[in-house]
Amino acid sequence: MQPENAHQTRVLTSLRVNGPQTASELAAQLSLSRSKIGQELARLEQLELVDRAGQAESRGGRRSGLVQVARSLRFVGIDIGASSLDVGVAGGGMDIRAHVSEAIDITEGPEVILGRAVELVGKLRADGHLPRLDGIGIGVPGPVSFRDGFTVSPPIMPGWDRYPVREHFMHQFDCPVLVDNDVNAMAIGEMYCGLARSVRDFLFVKIGTGIGCGIIMGNRVLRGSNGSAGDIGHIAVHDTGPVCSCGRTGCLEAWFSGAALSRDATALARSGESPGLRELLADRGTLTARDVGAAMRAGDPQALGLVRDGGRRLGRVLASLVNFCNPAMIVVGGGVAELGHVLLAEVRGELYRRSTPLATSSLPIVLSELGGNAGIVGAAGIVSDHVLGVQPAS
Amino acid sequence: MQPENAHQTRVLTSLRVNGPQTASELAAQLSLSRSKIGQELARLEQLELVDRAGQAESRGGRRSGLVQVARSLRFVGIDIGASSLDVGVAGGGMDIRAHVSEAIDITEGPEVILGRAVELVGKLRADGHLPRLDGIGIGVPGPVSFRDGFTVSPPIMPGWDRYPVREHFMHQFDCPVLVDNDVNAMAIGEMYCGLARSVRDFLFVKIGTGIGCGIIMGNRVLRGSNGSAGDIGHIAVHDTGPVCSCGRTGCLEAWFSGAALSRDATALARSGESPGLRELLADRGTLTARDVGAAMRAGDPQALGLVRDGGRRLGRVLASLVNFCNPAMIVVGGGVAELGHVLLAEVRGELYRRSTPLATSSLPIVLSELGGNAGIVGAAGIVSDHVLGVQPAS
Repeated sequence: MQPENAHQTRVLTSLRVNGPQTASELAAQLSLSRSKIGQELARLEQLELVDRAGQAESRGGRRSGLVQVARSLRFVGIDIGASSLDVGVAGGGMDIRAHVSEAIDITEGPEVILGRAVELVGKLRADGHLPRLDGIGIGVPGPVSFRDGFTVSPPIMPGWDRYPVREHFMHQFDCPVLVDNDVNAMAIGEMYCGLARSVRDFLFVKIGTGIGCGIIMGNRVLRGSNGSAGDIGHIAVHDTGPVCSCGRTGCLEAWFSGAALSRDATALARSGESPGLRELLADRGTLTARDVGAAMRAGDPQALGLVRDGGRRLGRVLASLVNFCNPAMIVVGGGVAELGHVLLAEVRGELYRRSTPLATSSLPIVLSELGGNAGIVGAAGIVSDHVLGVQPAS
Repeated sequence: MQPENAHQTRVLTSLRVNGPQTASELAAQLSLSRSKIGQELARLEQLELVDRAGQAESRGGRRSGLVQVARSLRFVGIDIGASSLDVGVAGGGMDIRAHVSEAIDITEGPEVILGRAVELVGKLRADGHLPRLDGIGIGVPGPVSFRDGFTVSPPIMPGWDRYPVREHFMHQFDCPVLVDNDVNAMAIGEMYCGLARSVRDFLFVKIGTGIGCGIIMGNRVLRGSNGSAGDIGHIAVHDTGPVCSCGRTGCLEAWFSGAALSRDATALARSGESPGLRELLADRGTLTARDVGAAMRAGDPQALGLVRDGGRRLGRVLASLVNFCNPAMIVVGGGVAELGHVLLAEVRGELYRRSTPLATSSLPIVLSELGGNAGIVGAAGIVSDHVLGVQPAS
């Protein structure tokens, strides 16, 4: 069920943004009469979009039951990564009620991957986690036309260009479906349930195989004019450098990302410059960012050097972006974020050195605490805002 | 007069964003009954916030007068620059009805400069241009705390730090007053009346003595968490370079800005490398960006080199920002924009070479057509949106 008119969406927006309230508080805030609010709340209860949350402090005899976004609502959040698929169920308060996950290979194409996602939603329903289904949000690892619900020229997703992801789900499930870039979804997850809850303007930087950025300004995702905002992996940090997957040289993610770390660590192992990495490579056959972290913690100076150089280059790019958009926080997530505080220390050093004092005077740079959950919370959040007609105030 | 309730602000927002409409169209769009809309429109007419704009096409007998934001409204826009003061009067349709201008020196401090501005408003009133005064918007050349209405650590404005600019005007005039950064105001002017009218997401780059950027995303100004968003003059383009006014090296505006051009042109004139510039310097005693433009157009290769190098450095910074926020247009304004198409050609070349094809596939980079009017139109626009309660949809 969706709200039927503008009054109802304003009520739902206020409940989402300000939390549970009494009918009188809502009436005052929205300039509606007490009887009009009563009417709309009754209707929203019939639609099962709001429910009662208990009693507010008494104000002298008037009925003062608290109203909230219905806890019985169920939104599905799907987070499609290059190598993993996560499906979660969130309630009306953006609380995760169930979560399943499996390994995938995004290059198998949309039919296979979306088929798996549909099966996992079916499994969650069979297990009783979806007594109702109010909307499905999906994050995919590439640029998305948010309006159209498909990916646009996604570099790491052969076969997905303009594939109708939204239609695929709408055929299977009778509910609203929205598709967004995975990093945007994670940023929204951080806004609702992560460390960025307390701020209105922040950047979420995901360092995985590549590097991307979710931009939240005034509690809204900034998607740009054709959905490619946040594509910071291809910002040039030097005039020269390793050749990037995009064909240019000097791009940030060709210098520092999961893929770049793997490449550089393998070279250090093969050349024998890093005995620690050589041992790990012999053990495992390939090296990942996690292996670089392990070698670094074991005292390998070459591994430490890789992390420091990478952090400095990331910090250099972020310094420009901080001058440009003056965020109140930077949250760093994705697999490479596991390199932790050594990485953050380098980023901070470079950022504080290169950005203006006004922009960095109170700028925390933190590691995501949501980790793997950010994507599903955010995807569920995107579709729930859409269903409820929520427009966060700016 | 200001609107009295949320219905009235929604009516005014719709009229500002969608233009003149009939009462029936407004009722349908805002989910209000025809009689409720009639009531609110009558009240808005009494408040002189809306008036009748003529007849819509007939739809079979129903009364269909068009309603619009009252053309009789009068907003004052004040644009305070480092060396110029502009005061204009705009009507309800953001049309400039009168405009006065004079040379100032911002370092004379707030009492003197704001005193001059108040006098100019008085002059416009004495001349009959302000039969009413619904609000005053002010743009100042430094970071502004938009909420507090004062400047924060403005580098080129000694004596202005935390000076209560808004209060200064509120004591003199009985109307709402808002203060914003001058470049933000110009960007809003471009959004209402300039080439950017047609897009929702764009950057306005002002190249004057320094370099700043106004960021419009989803038809809103992005101000950042403490009002310093758009401070692109201090983004580092190289690790080394001339020492900047901020004390660091490598900043964009230390390499390219009105001040940097003046410095470099003077050096080329004194060393004799550029006979053209040497002649101009002998003539005038100082060299400005305009002189560099004149020498360039007269065929001086050194002057041309300065513009090309500067354009490339600006393009380099803009390339990062385009990848980051994916605007639909870049408008270049400010005095140095008079260097014109040679400058733009270099910016474009660098930008298209360094940004991702998706972000630049349809990205016009244009010179401002509003020129000196952008600041007053925008300052008037900021306060008029506030007075009308306008929240552009995103």
